[in-house]
Amino acid sequence: MKIKFSPLFWPIKLKGNTIHILDETLLPHKKKYIKAKNYLQACSAIAQMKTRAVGQVLLVMYIFLMVVRKNKRKKNLHSTLANIANEVNSTRPTLSFNYLTSMVLGWYKSGLPLEKTILDFLEMLKNSRIKQAKQASKLLKGRDVILTHCNISGLLPLIAEFAKREGKPVSFFVTETRPYLQGSRLTAWELMNSGFDVTIIADNMVAQVMSEGKINKVLVGSDNLAENGDIANKVGTYPIAILAKYFKIPFYVLCAPLSGAKTGKDIKIEIRPDKELLVYQGLHLAPKGVKAYYPAFDITSNSLITKHIYLELNYG
Amino acid sequence: MKIKFSPLFWPIKLKGNTIHILDETLLPHKKKYIKAKNYLQACSAIAQMKTRAVGQVLLVMYIFLMVVRKNKRKKNLHSTLANIANEVNSTRPTLSFNYLTSMVLGWYKSGLPLEKTILDFLEMLKNSRIKQAKQASKLLKGRDVILTHCNISGLLPLIAEFAKREGKPVSFFVTETRPYLQGSRLTAWELMNSGFDVTIIADNMVAQVMSEGKINKVLVGSDNLAENGDIANKVGTYPIAILAKYFKIPFYVLCAPLSGAKTGKDIKIEIRPDKELLVYQGLHLAPKGVKAYYPAFDITSNSLITKHIYLELNYG
Repeated sequence: MKIKFSPLFWPIKLKGNTIHILDETLLPHKKKYIKAKNYLQACSAIAQMKTRAVGQVLLVMYIFLMVVRKNKRKKNLHSTLANIANEVNSTRPTLSFNYLTSMVLGWYKSGLPLEKTILDFLEMLKNSRIKQAKQASKLLKGRDVILTHCNISGLLPLIAEFAKREGKPVSFFVTETRPYLQGSRLTAWELMNSGFDVTIIADNMVAQVMSEGKINKVLVGSDNLAENGDIANKVGTYPIAILAKYFKIPFYVLCAPLSGAKTGKDIKIEIRPDKELLVYQGLHLAPKGVKAYYPAFDITSNSLITKHIYLELNYG
Repeated sequence: MKIKFSPLFWPIKLKGNTIHILDETLLPHKKKYIKAKNYLQACSAIAQMKTRAVGQVLLVMYIFLMVVRKNKRKKNLHSTLANIANEVNSTRPTLSFNYLTSMVLGWYKSGLPLEKTILDFLEMLKNSRIKQAKQASKLLKGRDVILTHCNISGLLPLIAEFAKREGKPVSFFVTETRPYLQGSRLTAWELMNSGFDVTIIADNMVAQVMSEGKINKVLVGSDNLAENGDIANKVGTYPIAILAKYFKIPFYVLCAPLSGAKTGKDIKIEIRPDKELLVYQGLHLAPKGVKAYYPAFDITSNSLITKHIYLELNYG
């Protein structure tokens, strides 16, 4: 059966020598792709956070793929690839792309055919993500109402589709996810467009909707998985996990690959600029000159997680 | 010692025959008073939610005071007062002003001098609120960092001032309080203007700042107090109470007068229009046509409250 994917499942494409990047900052009002013709333009899209989560991984891989294709006749690509790796690694100081760029450089050094290896990696990533969505759908029952937070890069419509095909229609509540509103702008948008029932609430309404018995399950993503099962995800995930425990609601996590952290304490939390919390699209939300504090992620302890749904990556 | 009050402590004034209503919807960018020259204009300000919480109580009392003063020579005021009561009661269908309007009609029926009785009531209310703030300040220690939510009508700067005079400087974290942003727009504004240290966080960052050990105490207001100690307050209060319990942080409530409800279950929660969550000052925050759910209040169980700080009203 043909699967229809959310645009957020695979937000980057390579057409000829141009990378097409779905501009997530314009969603849901405009669905527009930025066209990057070289690796500097593509890196600038990362720095400006035009794409996020799985989109960043794809973008890095497509940058290398584009450059490899452009330089097919060049004998030694090492310095070219090393320059790109440096440029990618410096796009976001608090985010590590090092594991990805090192992986690609490693492939090159060990003499693997780079174009094929990158394409194989992307194919494997796609299939692993589909498999992860399928596993998640097995945990659901018909008429489940699922609370989610932020955005899980196109996995939720896929999970809902798999559940539907198994005769288990589900619906969603999504927190708007301040300050960037990924819940309202991305998750509600992709679920609604895929024909699934979705209701937006503010981040502070979770306890109220849980206490009304409206939520059966919580399903969130993660940006980082530690060896002991702790996860880092968009700020606002941790309180939902605590509330889910309080109301005895299962809390499921769609995991990122292992990050190398032993426990959640080893994961550094990015503190972002006050302005992103105090101003929304030019609109001042607070008195000028006031202080704010914006930790962009929080750590949810393994003990609060009912079940991890792992992403199985087999490569290298 | 002279007390300097926040404009939100007493946001309504009667000057001559004109009621001055602080327009809280324009804060913090503009501090402007709406001038109501008759009771219909004043009721319209309630319906448009230009004032809230204690401001609504004051506005109702000043409406009666204005009319009594305008009609000093009139022999029988009953039908005039009854008309006003009807108009006030119908401003917000889900909010009950009946206890206030009935109280004033009761005073009239029992032959009390209305002008003096209203003035006495307002004076008593002011003194009771100051006393309540003083009691709250006794619970604080020097260097306490207090988390609050929404806005407590000018009580927080007063509490911080009392604490400061006792040699106990305190500082604040305040949730922005979506969707109306009373935390950012009102509480952060009044605290900053009164010279107190305040930091804004999004509603979904409470668990993270608590887990970092940044918060010593939680202090919130309440719109409704049930006989068993349950309270209703702005949505987002209940999850903070659950998180405070999880992180073993004391949770204090500045109480409203008893509402007549036996328990929290007797308090009806106002469900407000989707639009207020999906659009902010004309800016669409979500895809058009999406559903939202906006319960404006939540109920915090007595068992989650470390201490109630009561408002003692002695009248009637």
